[in-house]
Amino acid sequence: RKKMQVMAAIAEDRRIEQESMLSEKPPTLLRDGEDADDKNGLRARFEQMVFRIQNEVCAAVEAVDGGKFREDAWSRPGGGGGVSRVLQGGNVWEKAGVNVSVVYGSMPPEAYRAATGSTTKKPGRIPFFASGVSSVMHPKNPFAPTVHFNYRYFETDAPEGAEGAPRAWWFGGGTDLTPSYIFEEDVKHFHQVQKNACDKFDPNFYPKFKKWCDDYFLIKHRDERRGLGGIFFDDLNDRDPDELLAFATACADSVIPGYIPLVEKRKDMPFTQENKDWQQLRRGRYVEFNLVYDRGTTFGLQTGGRIESILMSLPLTARWEYDHQPEEGTEERKLLDACRNPPDWV
Amino acid sequence: RKKMQVMAAIAEDRRIEQESMLSEKPPTLLRDGEDADDKNGLRARFEQMVFRIQNEVCAAVEAVDGGKFREDAWSRPGGGGGVSRVLQGGNVWEKAGVNVSVVYGSMPPEAYRAATGSTTKKPGRIPFFASGVSSVMHPKNPFAPTVHFNYRYFETDAPEGAEGAPRAWWFGGGTDLTPSYIFEEDVKHFHQVQKNACDKFDPNFYPKFKKWCDDYFLIKHRDERRGLGGIFFDDLNDRDPDELLAFATACADSVIPGYIPLVEKRKDMPFTQENKDWQQLRRGRYVEFNLVYDRGTTFGLQTGGRIESILMSLPLTARWEYDHQPEEGTEERKLLDACRNPPDWV
Repeated sequence: RKKMQVMAAIAEDRRIEQESMLSEKPPTLLRDGEDADDKNGLRARFEQMVFRIQNEVCAAVEAVDGGKFREDAWSRPGGGGGVSRVLQGGNVWEKAGVNVSVVYGSMPPEAYRAATGSTTKKPGRIPFFASGVSSVMHPKNPFAPTVHFNYRYFETDAPEGAEGAPRAWWFGGGTDLTPSYIFEEDVKHFHQVQKNACDKFDPNFYPKFKKWCDDYFLIKHRDERRGLGGIFFDDLNDRDPDELLAFATACADSVIPGYIPLVEKRKDMPFTQENKDWQQLRRGRYVEFNLVYDRGTTFGLQTGGRIESILMSLPLTARWEYDHQPEEGTEERKLLDACRNPPDWV
Repeated sequence: RKKMQVMAAIAEDRRIEQESMLSEKPPTLLRDGEDADDKNGLRARFEQMVFRIQNEVCAAVEAVDGGKFREDAWSRPGGGGGVSRVLQGGNVWEKAGVNVSVVYGSMPPEAYRAATGSTTKKPGRIPFFASGVSSVMHPKNPFAPTVHFNYRYFETDAPEGAEGAPRAWWFGGGTDLTPSYIFEEDVKHFHQVQKNACDKFDPNFYPKFKKWCDDYFLIKHRDERRGLGGIFFDDLNDRDPDELLAFATACADSVIPGYIPLVEKRKDMPFTQENKDWQQLRRGRYVEFNLVYDRGTTFGLQTGGRIESILMSLPLTARWEYDHQPEEGTEERKLLDACRNPPDWV
């Protein structure tokens, strides 16, 4: 895939600039001038959307948890930066994080030519722009599920010093659920809410993006998924960008109604040490997926993004037991079977 | 490095065959016939060495712990296999594993030509042989250190159907210590024992392999090492193979005297919840290194080795706190500083 070649080229090329912490969240992370002033531009509208989602999701979590998110904001010398919000050791969530980030970078022209087939002669480096919201929330109660979502927008500019050169853009994202125990009504509710968001735009979206999600979150070395999926898409650029922005927005707006009610229902359920240990083993699988396969994580680690924000997705605690095999007929085995052979939930 | 290209080629090419569990440990994992019968061959002598080390290390751990290792043995259809021993939830160690493995595989000829510069015309696939012992032991007490060691021997054969073709072999290995708290006398003792083993063979070995170890166990995205090092070497083939086998043997024989006394000294020290949490955070770093950077682990996951044996190196439990920064002047900070700027211990 071309996009993956672009990402690989960026990762191989050089680290992004070191961040400086800010005393408070700035109104925009966009570069002064062109980007920040163009309020109707896609960059500005996308950034405002992800900031709104960050506010709303954090408010919804705080309302259920009773705890407060800590906020860290930073910027980079050449423009861009991020805002991380983390709630650690809450009443309901042991760790919940919601990141917004804006990255301005550039990649070497050879990489861009290889990835896009461009034949532009002697172009300069290719500037790129990336913005996104990314979140993982791990509840304490083993019957309350973990959720992850990420919505992102990516642009490559014209090469420096070249005219009429290619310019690429795409949207990516998804929301997926990782329970340690299956409550069918919960998983169906979650998938139904994602499907509803998709169906407003295209009846083919949900089936396509549900499968993409099942394929993406595969822990290859175990031939099992980290959880029960949801939706995942990438390289989306075959429609009007306004429509795709609206689609990404609808998906991001589905996080609260799709997820928060499940935690409210399960957060006070009594559980045993066995339930907790199984949750911790599944958290170990979560760590395996994120550190070995997740593109956002591995890309972030390679390019020198802000480590604490990237690894915020890891659970507070995790466990690895040698050769743990849940017995046939148990609830633990039922979950594992669904991670191995993803069912259709709606 | 040529060797790394060979390893990459093997990883990219194909999975090794699925293992079958055996009811008991076989006397040898070598292929019947040539390899198993050639008792004085390097393959047989290396295998006997790693089996002996596995026995001795497990016996030493059991003597201190009081618990017993569980043993799992397996073989593969084309020859080779492994023996894993694991002690989980012991009195002193929360997880200790010692693996022996023998792998027969083959790689595509193009990869071999690219890696070695060989110009042999139309060779068949290149068979390879790899054998090793690999171990990680995580104690419960936060003042008792984790140790890891691995000694391995690798050979590539003549390509199938080619005459007088190149044939490569090398030794690799190392032993390194990962404490959560520094007791200088302990770290010095550990390094001194490794140095003594090295010095018998070459006065340049210890300084060279100590630095190699510090370089190898770097968690790049944090610019800190997972622990306090020891020795690490690879691609060792510039001496008589008998001498290098003796060297690898001397290193492997240094694990017990270098490590076990440290655990005996620290295993019953009183500790606080803070000490335990810090140990758990360092275990998180261990997981990051192993899943993101460790070649043995990533190679094993990619080639379809026995997952439970490969991931035996992961701790029983680990922890990730957002933006944890130990304060200046604390024992936790002292450890972190030594992981960032490795001192000379002897």
